[in-house]
Amino acid sequence: MQDAQDIIDTAHEMADAARQAILPLFRSASLATDNKRPADFDPVTEADRAAEKAMREVLARRRPKDAIFGEEFGHREGSSELTWILDPIDGTRAFICGAPSWGVLIGLSDGQGIRYGLIDQPYIGERFEGGLGLSRLTGPDGQRPLAVRNGVTLDQATLMTTFPELGTEAEAEAFRRVAAKVRLTRYGLDCYAYALLALGQIDLVIEAGLQSYDIAGPLAVIEAAGGIVTNWQGGSAAQGGQVVAAATELLHQQALELLNA
Amino acid sequence: MQDAQDIIDTAHEMADAARQAILPLFRSASLATDNKRPADFDPVTEADRAAEKAMREVLARRRPKDAIFGEEFGHREGSSELTWILDPIDGTRAFICGAPSWGVLIGLSDGQGIRYGLIDQPYIGERFEGGLGLSRLTGPDGQRPLAVRNGVTLDQATLMTTFPELGTEAEAEAFRRVAAKVRLTRYGLDCYAYALLALGQIDLVIEAGLQSYDIAGPLAVIEAAGGIVTNWQGGSAAQGGQVVAAATELLHQQALELLNA
Repeated sequence: MQDAQDIIDTAHEMADAARQAILPLFRSASLATDNKRPADFDPVTEADRAAEKAMREVLARRRPKDAIFGEEFGHREGSSELTWILDPIDGTRAFICGAPSWGVLIGLSDGQGIRYGLIDQPYIGERFEGGLGLSRLTGPDGQRPLAVRNGVTLDQATLMTTFPELGTEAEAEAFRRVAAKVRLTRYGLDCYAYALLALGQIDLVIEAGLQSYDIAGPLAVIEAAGGIVTNWQGGSAAQGGQVVAAATELLHQQALELLNA
Repeated sequence: MQDAQDIIDTAHEMADAARQAILPLFRSASLATDNKRPADFDPVTEADRAAEKAMREVLARRRPKDAIFGEEFGHREGSSELTWILDPIDGTRAFICGAPSWGVLIGLSDGQGIRYGLIDQPYIGERFEGGLGLSRLTGPDGQRPLAVRNGVTLDQATLMTTFPELGTEAEAEAFRRVAAKVRLTRYGLDCYAYALLALGQIDLVIEAGLQSYDIAGPLAVIEAAGGIVTNWQGGSAAQGGQVVAAATELLHQQALELLNA
């Protein structure tokens, strides 16, 4: 991409701005939450809104031609072929529990696919990014390359998802077919699970009911680290819905077979 | 306690030594794991052993009269009335996933009860401690007091446990009776859940099958922050087993009633 460096710099400036907006509210007693859908527990915090606003301000100043699709403030048309896909706080439930497994997600689509993505955990100070030639973690210990791990068989694999009751009953049952075959299943990490996959620490993440902004950033990070992300039918995961992320092609294929058994 | 300051200083020196022993191995590719009980998945890492060894060395130098009970190296007799209770890595499964929800646990018993405790998360750089007049978090943002939150009703409460399938089927069913009454149930945080309770971020932690070294440190931290920790019968939790930790007396009573319904 012609302006890759400007895109990367912009993404970092956006993530920095989101950190500044969110951190004063994380674990603050004054945190206000409300529900977009009262029947369905989905807390939206002041921090969520402040962070997306801050990221949009960076884009308005640095890249006004690009389109934006964000969780909180929806779609803004652009005149370039690029769309920034933003989830200011993925894992709002973790956030309101004070658990540092939430993250700021940024993805960049060129209309053909997600070309760059970033997962930022402001409290720990970790930034996972991938695409446009990059695959790295910048964290408390400096920078290190991201790479999935190879050679782990399904019966030795670690699987993560956010809720044990993910999605519909049929989806939960499909998930349990995979969980029954792996060595270890863990819950509760939201987008941080995708970061751990890219870091070579775990082998599979399976989720359902995702939005496009939940997966755009992680998708680019995992692909750049050598992993595979698709929907449960093996097609593009960019629209969200049912998502399976795997460290290797073999694990990916085995997970798809079990999910569709 | 007469030598409270020396106890606190010793605990910090132990936790510092554990950090030094563990951090080079966290997320390292060379991490060796083996199983104490092959039939039951219970990884023990080099880090676990190195950290307990490092903590015992601090005690041998600074407080040779105190007894020690540690997960890895068992009991050492002492000639004082004090026993240090050590879990060098609580949450070994989180550790091998690269998730920073494991912790170093230190508790100090005087034979009557746990008088001081500490939960340390080396990667994030957070140390939660309580007892001997202290109740504080020392973290990336400096120090802040720990205090449970008050006034949250059961139907608005957040509940945590490490595994949805905790303990026996009867224990899991008892847990589900509480989970059905709260607003939000989250999984997967190991000892970090107790830290979040002491920090006023969540309201209940319920677990089963704990060892004494899993709960000694957290118990002191939560009590010093104003919370309540007992077994499911309302008695002392110091021996482990079934544990319920609550922010308030009312939530504690309601949880006990549901667990024993």
